[in-house]
Amino acid sequence: MDLLNRFKEYLSKEKLYTPGDKILLAVSGGVDSVIMTHLCKQAGIDCGIAHCNFQLRGAESTRDETFVTALANELALPLYTIRFDTETYATEKRVSIQVAARELRYAWLEETRQQHGYTCLATAHHMQDNVETVLMNFSKGTGIAGLHGILPRQQHLIRPLLFAQKSDILALAAANGYGYVEDSSNITVKYTRNYFRHKVIPVIQETYPAAVPQMAASIDRFREAELLYNEAVQRHKKRLLFQQGDNYRVPVLKLQKAVPQQTLAWEIFKDFGCSPAQLPQVIDLMQSEPGKWVETTSHRIIRDRVWLLITSLEVQEAPLIVIEKETAVVPVKGGTLKLKIRPADGATIPTSPLMACLDMDTLQFPLLMRRWKQGDYFYPLGMRKKKKLSRFFIDQKLSLIQKENIWVLESAKRVVWIIGMRIDDRCKITPNTNHMLVLEWQPI
Amino acid sequence: MDLLNRFKEYLSKEKLYTPGDKILLAVSGGVDSVIMTHLCKQAGIDCGIAHCNFQLRGAESTRDETFVTALANELALPLYTIRFDTETYATEKRVSIQVAARELRYAWLEETRQQHGYTCLATAHHMQDNVETVLMNFSKGTGIAGLHGILPRQQHLIRPLLFAQKSDILALAAANGYGYVEDSSNITVKYTRNYFRHKVIPVIQETYPAAVPQMAASIDRFREAELLYNEAVQRHKKRLLFQQGDNYRVPVLKLQKAVPQQTLAWEIFKDFGCSPAQLPQVIDLMQSEPGKWVETTSHRIIRDRVWLLITSLEVQEAPLIVIEKETAVVPVKGGTLKLKIRPADGATIPTSPLMACLDMDTLQFPLLMRRWKQGDYFYPLGMRKKKKLSRFFIDQKLSLIQKENIWVLESAKRVVWIIGMRIDDRCKITPNTNHMLVLEWQPI
Repeated sequence: MDLLNRFKEYLSKEKLYTPGDKILLAVSGGVDSVIMTHLCKQAGIDCGIAHCNFQLRGAESTRDETFVTALANELALPLYTIRFDTETYATEKRVSIQVAARELRYAWLEETRQQHGYTCLATAHHMQDNVETVLMNFSKGTGIAGLHGILPRQQHLIRPLLFAQKSDILALAAANGYGYVEDSSNITVKYTRNYFRHKVIPVIQETYPAAVPQMAASIDRFREAELLYNEAVQRHKKRLLFQQGDNYRVPVLKLQKAVPQQTLAWEIFKDFGCSPAQLPQVIDLMQSEPGKWVETTSHRIIRDRVWLLITSLEVQEAPLIVIEKETAVVPVKGGTLKLKIRPADGATIPTSPLMACLDMDTLQFPLLMRRWKQGDYFYPLGMRKKKKLSRFFIDQKLSLIQKENIWVLESAKRVVWIIGMRIDDRCKITPNTNHMLVLEWQPI
Repeated sequence: MDLLNRFKEYLSKEKLYTPGDKILLAVSGGVDSVIMTHLCKQAGIDCGIAHCNFQLRGAESTRDETFVTALANELALPLYTIRFDTETYATEKRVSIQVAARELRYAWLEETRQQHGYTCLATAHHMQDNVETVLMNFSKGTGIAGLHGILPRQQHLIRPLLFAQKSDILALAAANGYGYVEDSSNITVKYTRNYFRHKVIPVIQETYPAAVPQMAASIDRFREAELLYNEAVQRHKKRLLFQQGDNYRVPVLKLQKAVPQQTLAWEIFKDFGCSPAQLPQVIDLMQSEPGKWVETTSHRIIRDRVWLLITSLEVQEAPLIVIEKETAVVPVKGGTLKLKIRPADGATIPTSPLMACLDMDTLQFPLLMRRWKQGDYFYPLGMRKKKKLSRFFIDQKLSLIQKENIWVLESAKRVVWIIGMRIDDRCKITPNTNHMLVLEWQPI
């Protein structure tokens, strides 16, 4: 089958084009993008050409722009061009020339696509590019997601030439006498990629001459395998990850028994900012004391008695937190509350306001932890009379901000502890107390 | 952590050793197997040494055997040795020296393991070996199963050194002054592997110095990903593959809609002898006429109306085959029966004995297809009197073998067609027939 038919077949197989689509082609003037343009034109696709002049190669940059302009005229295609001051951008943003070129390019291409009503943007990545990408990922270390390589489609971005080998592209250009330009610097291609292209892959091809198409076929299989992998991961997540308001929790026992544990833990915690390097620490939490935690870029993962709790580091609306008898740790904005139940016998009552010991018999589970509100009252320890919290705070000379950050613990609609300040007298430990609830407030 | 502790940790993590196990170590005398031996000894593992002398390298082979004997004495370990006439074996079996060495080695090692009551056989494959294997698989073309590399355990065979880099192994030997021998020919290592070891991987390491451990870590992840992949595949197979006696069937409509189709089709049909090259033909069957088939090394995959039928090419006991009204194709030993229902109006009745037209109103579905048996009778077309099949066959002068291969079609306990020979008179087409069942017998 000739390249044009294979091109059409690939578009249809990967659902890259349906009649009515308008495709904006990113054309540098190099052989890949030129051939992509000719193929699209011949396939009768409604398309236009976008060309970026990075002004990094003096006369050569101008030559490329002139060439692409002529190509657009010849094929009667709409043309969009831009000139970037890439060097200034790179200096100002303190990024490499490569990163600068990439950022400028994709931002402008996407803008142009939207402005002129194109449904997709097409780049001319081909089979070799894809194989290089996957080999590089594998060499750097990757999971299964690093094996799907360059995808035929990502939202509006399509790669209609991924099916083609470089040799097919060159052969078509030669057979039809299609002109193109050569980039003497290959400035937008990374050093490592060039190294894999010119040093690694040719060495592999010496033993396996068909290595590139064979690897490309493998990549297609990996892409399908990944779909099935994701299906299984989603099923496991349903039994391993539970949402509770703004927080999430993972049952420790189930995760301990989950197979394969590393991968499932990764798939769960990576969505909460966990890095590969942090994963072992998170897994270690399963063997930890309640109260230990790992902080990711976005979340805290905290060991509770039977759960790993996942809370956002973002400021949240103050929630209403339900505390069961089994709860060991309650992470909230501003600190962590730790709970344990102990026999009262011979225990000494701590004097720190950060600790509280309450008579279990006076409590009714579940307890609630919440912000204080107007109208709240309690019987401050040592007093026979009830007192409004608002009044109590005035006595304690709390600032507005301090008041805003106060948490209270509630049992059966009664405030039993103004956390970090004073307990309710009716809940205090007495000679008759059997068991006590020991509470510790750890402000951050 | 030093190598001994990492060794112990790896044994425990991969469940390669539990107290009570006895491990037979395959020791060539090279540094890998020598270090494996020292580590096992130091870890207090009950082990013995097995050494194969392939007699391929003259004095060097003897030197290796002597060295391993001395090592066993030094460490007070049981020793088992053997000398193979590898060249004669290779000539006689017409295999390469490499294949000969491999076959002789594994057969004898497994025999020795069983004879002397070892629970496992250990080989000294290390991290580099594993990375080479996966890179080679990827270059040749593979699916996800080609990415798990050398497994830490396959039944009785374990690889306790897979966690270690070659440099770790050499460093331990140097630090402790452990002696070992060097194989000047590396005869048992394939050319391609040597090429990847000495040419490909070093080139990759120039850009990614940590490529080997990074790839090894990736391989561990692929191994876990494969477990999840297999889980999803099994779940799909349950809805895509049905057993029916000795045969299997795959619903065409469901397979057409299955995602990812290629991979799921592969996972289903590979177990029935389908090669990767045949898979596209099998997938094409979904668009084919009923009756088309693909023959694999072990099975026929046949397009029926709503199913792909999978039947073994092995000789089977003659079965009883249920034919529903919807059935289009019945593949059996000796041939294929095709069925269609047609209006009788204006149809010409074929005269070939391989075809039969029966009045639908005289039939009762499901029909049965089975071998004839003693006691069967029917009303041969054109006769008013019933006749025993045994008698009919004598009249037709059938041989014993021919009789053995006769199939009959049965409706409501009556034989309606001796397939390929004569229909029952009571089922023939008459001027009153509305619809007819058109049957075609295609002997192989």
